[in-house]
Amino acid sequence: MTPRSPRPRDRGIPEATVARLPVYLRALQGMAERGILTVSSEDLATIAGVNSAKLRKDLSHLGSYGTRGVGYDVDYLVYQISRELGLTQDWTVAIAGVGNLGRALANYGGFGTRGFRIAALFDADRRVVGDEVAGLVVRHIDTLEDVVGSEGVSIGVIATPAASAQGVCDRFVEAGVTSVLNFAPVVLNVPPAVDVRKVDLSIELQILAFHEQRKADGQAPPEAGWIDATEKT
Amino acid sequence: MTPRSPRPRDRGIPEATVARLPVYLRALQGMAERGILTVSSEDLATIAGVNSAKLRKDLSHLGSYGTRGVGYDVDYLVYQISRELGLTQDWTVAIAGVGNLGRALANYGGFGTRGFRIAALFDADRRVVGDEVAGLVVRHIDTLEDVVGSEGVSIGVIATPAASAQGVCDRFVEAGVTSVLNFAPVVLNVPPAVDVRKVDLSIELQILAFHEQRKADGQAPPEAGWIDATEKT
Repeated sequence: MTPRSPRPRDRGIPEATVARLPVYLRALQGMAERGILTVSSEDLATIAGVNSAKLRKDLSHLGSYGTRGVGYDVDYLVYQISRELGLTQDWTVAIAGVGNLGRALANYGGFGTRGFRIAALFDADRRVVGDEVAGLVVRHIDTLEDVVGSEGVSIGVIATPAASAQGVCDRFVEAGVTSVLNFAPVVLNVPPAVDVRKVDLSIELQILAFHEQRKADGQAPPEAGWIDATEKT
Repeated sequence: MTPRSPRPRDRGIPEATVARLPVYLRALQGMAERGILTVSSEDLATIAGVNSAKLRKDLSHLGSYGTRGVGYDVDYLVYQISRELGLTQDWTVAIAGVGNLGRALANYGGFGTRGFRIAALFDADRRVVGDEVAGLVVRHIDTLEDVVGSEGVSIGVIATPAASAQGVCDRFVEAGVTSVLNFAPVVLNVPPAVDVRKVDLSIELQILAFHEQRKADGQAPPEAGWIDATEKT
């Protein structure tokens, strides 16, 4: 295996590339589990749903160019992408809001293996506080500040009703959380140093509706390459 | 109010613009509810989290240019974006998988007002079939084909475990569904005419981890405009 060099610094990686790296990573991890040692850019691109030129460009940002006629070393590429994404260390996550969505997230199997540890669940409803969900006892939201500090939470997940989301977000930020994943249907205001990503089901559905309408109109599908494959995957 | 022209045809709208239209729409609907009649591109851009040049470019794809010194007519822009996204008609949605996630989706308040009608819930577990969730009786997955036909379902939402997702997707597609929103942690294979969008929490978390790592490294945040604001919102 190629020696593991330190992660190169100060190279800007386009945000669109960052968004595709987890898709490549998942495809590569699947190959690694099946004992596949090398992969061509064409094969990896097909599995990840992008074109191979874009894939090669994306991976070149990591300093990974593959070997002509051989392709990429699967294990090493898993390592390079994991390192780039910061998954070679564990990130501690807390979920606020333990309704159906919060429970679904807490029980989601894919975290532990991907560099994330769910350390705490919070709810404001005393009927839920004390319940065991996914092996964790639900804590009252008023303990948020203490627990974020003691557990070293760096990522806060907001799965509360819309009306509570900004208040919970403010508490996460005040307690030192610098990344927020927001499922509540509101736009959150945060200081510039805090990253927020929003998962909004109605937005995804609206994008599908656009394509449904285009199909209903009998319009030709867009040319290959026009749709960004990340958004299709 | 400006007369409502038919939706222009055959103009390609970049996929990245399509992905931002729902964000603008939500901001505009909020303004309309508060009785705001016109909005400047700068103000709308700020609320939507993009820069104003990108906003104006996006809206120009809809043939909407605003009026110098006045801005955009809020109601008309709501109409134009809704029309472009295909939200001036109702889309019928079915959800397969009525675990915590499926229940959270079924109870999600934002659908009805945004052009989506949830017509059916399916599960394979006979202990769940017959339950009432969000005003619907859960049906057995073996009725999927009949119900998709009788209800005219055009969008299938997959909230099943990973192992069942491809099978359910195949049944949706076979039954005539042409858009699939996938929450299961697998890549689905579909014919080219079917659109799939994937919501993957671990991917969102991985993108946050990238930014957390960059912050931990003490690297400067990227220049304004370098991060695509859709991906931050």
